Amino acid sequence: MSDTAALVRELADRVTLLEDKLAILELMTSYGPAIDSGSADAVAKVWTEDGVYDVDVAVFSGHAEIIKMVHSDAHQGYIRGGCGHILEPGYVKIDGDTAVATCKSQLILKNPEADGYTVLRVTANRWEMRKINGEWKCERRISRVLDGRPEAVALLAAGS
Amino acid sequence: MSDTAALVRELADRVTLLEDKLAILELMTSYGPAIDSGSADAVAKVWTEDGVYDVDVAVFSGHAEIIKMVHSDAHQGYIRGGCGHILEPGYVKIDGDTAVATCKSQLILKNPEADGYTVLRVTANRWEMRKINGEWKCERRISRVLDGRPEAVALLAAGS
Amino acid sequence: MSDTAALVRELADRVTLLEDKLAILELMTSYGPAIDSGSADAVAKVWTEDGVYDVDVAVFSGHAEIIKMVHSDAHQGYIRGGCGHILEPGYVKIDGDTAVATCKSQLILKNPEADGYTVLRVTANRWEMRKINGEWKCERRISRVLDGRPEAVALLAAGS
Repeated sequence: MSDTAALVRELADRVTLLEDKLAILELMTSYGPAIDSGSADAVAKVWTEDGVYDVDVAVFSGHAEIIKMVHSDAHQGYIRGGCGHILEPGYVKIDGDTAVATCKSQLILKNPEADGYTVLRVTANRWEMRKINGEWKCERRISRVLDGRPEAVALLAAGS
Repeated sequence: MSDTAALVRELADRVTLLEDKLAILELMTSYGPAIDSGSADAVAKVWTEDGVYDVDVAVFSGHAEIIKMVHSDAHQGYIRGGCGHILEPGYVKIDGDTAVATCKSQLILKNPEADGYTVLRVTANRWEMRKINGEWKCERRISRVLDGRPEAVALLAAGS
Repeated sequence: MSDTAALVRELADRVTLLEDKLAILELMTSYGPAIDSGSADAVAKVWTEDGVYDVDVAVFSGHAEIIKMVHSDAHQGYIRGGCGHILEPGYVKIDGDTAVATCKSQLILKNPEADGYTVLRVTANRWEMRKINGEWKCERRISRVLDGRPEAVALLAAGS
């Protein structure tokens, strides 16, 4: 193989890694517009078919349960009242076809009786992702409120 | 054409797409330091010459009106009092030389009479962008406050 | 040199620039999980060995002082009470082996006596970075609270 052909192969691997990194960031950013508009199918599609969203008070397993969460009175009430689920940029570690991203999120709600908004929660998030048939999906997202509970701090430490 | 030459052409297309994606993210992040320092020209340059910034209470068309908004008493008052216009990472969909990015923003102000800050607004944002002479610019940004109004939720749904 | 070989060399340069940009974003996002979990070594490794973290009330020079800051009663108290140091995506300007990233950060604390969180600070940040032996590190980070003080606004203007 010529020098040029060898360099091209090496370049192709580097480009694939860059594509993977951006695809993971895109997967995470796709959650935002979907969750705050109640677009339940788009929310579910962040996960694999049997993906798990494990929050402090419940575990949602698979698309049907995630869609039901989006349709719940609690979530629909947030949207009707005015809400933003805001994600900071995640810190991503890729290992072949799997990746872990760690970030914090805020849930911010409109104050019903005054100007302004309240930050209801700041949460630690761990996204475990896998590339399946060329597409990155979340297999498990674990979220724990940062209110001093050790498991939330441990979740961040594990991703640092 | 040899196999290597064909692979190089394909790689060049993939690299261009990655460059486009990062250029769009850079365009969005360039807004932050500019708006909170009142750097009016830098704010305007996020948009095309006749670009539009359509917010709930006003529509600013073209660089001159955007610059005037930055110089307004309202905006200068935010800066003097202490403010942060904070953008979450956008969810970007590219289609050739056009792109749509959807994200939320926060406007956070220093409390004048106490420690701490108040989140005055959480806003849904849609950025419609175009690549012109190799450079990405915003043609139209639409922002609607997330206080339960349907148009803000619809704007997020359209970008999900 | 053939056309293909020339194109490959050009592509290699473009890929290196993309890698640099993502490496800088990764360096910045690595700060988040580390600081909020008190992972002092991981925090320090964001900086060069003699890197400087210059905040409003103190200057931390080198890994040992940065680690001591993470171990301080003040920072540990934030973690025990529930906190999030949240960074927006940075606006990055690269010039060869150096780069400057400008962004805002929020320090959000759990309210000890009520539901919800308080945004204690919104801060302007300037990260001066250098690529050393192929790895990007922060040489100096300057942070100034956005409470109307001119130096915070000037820091954002310089990065716009």
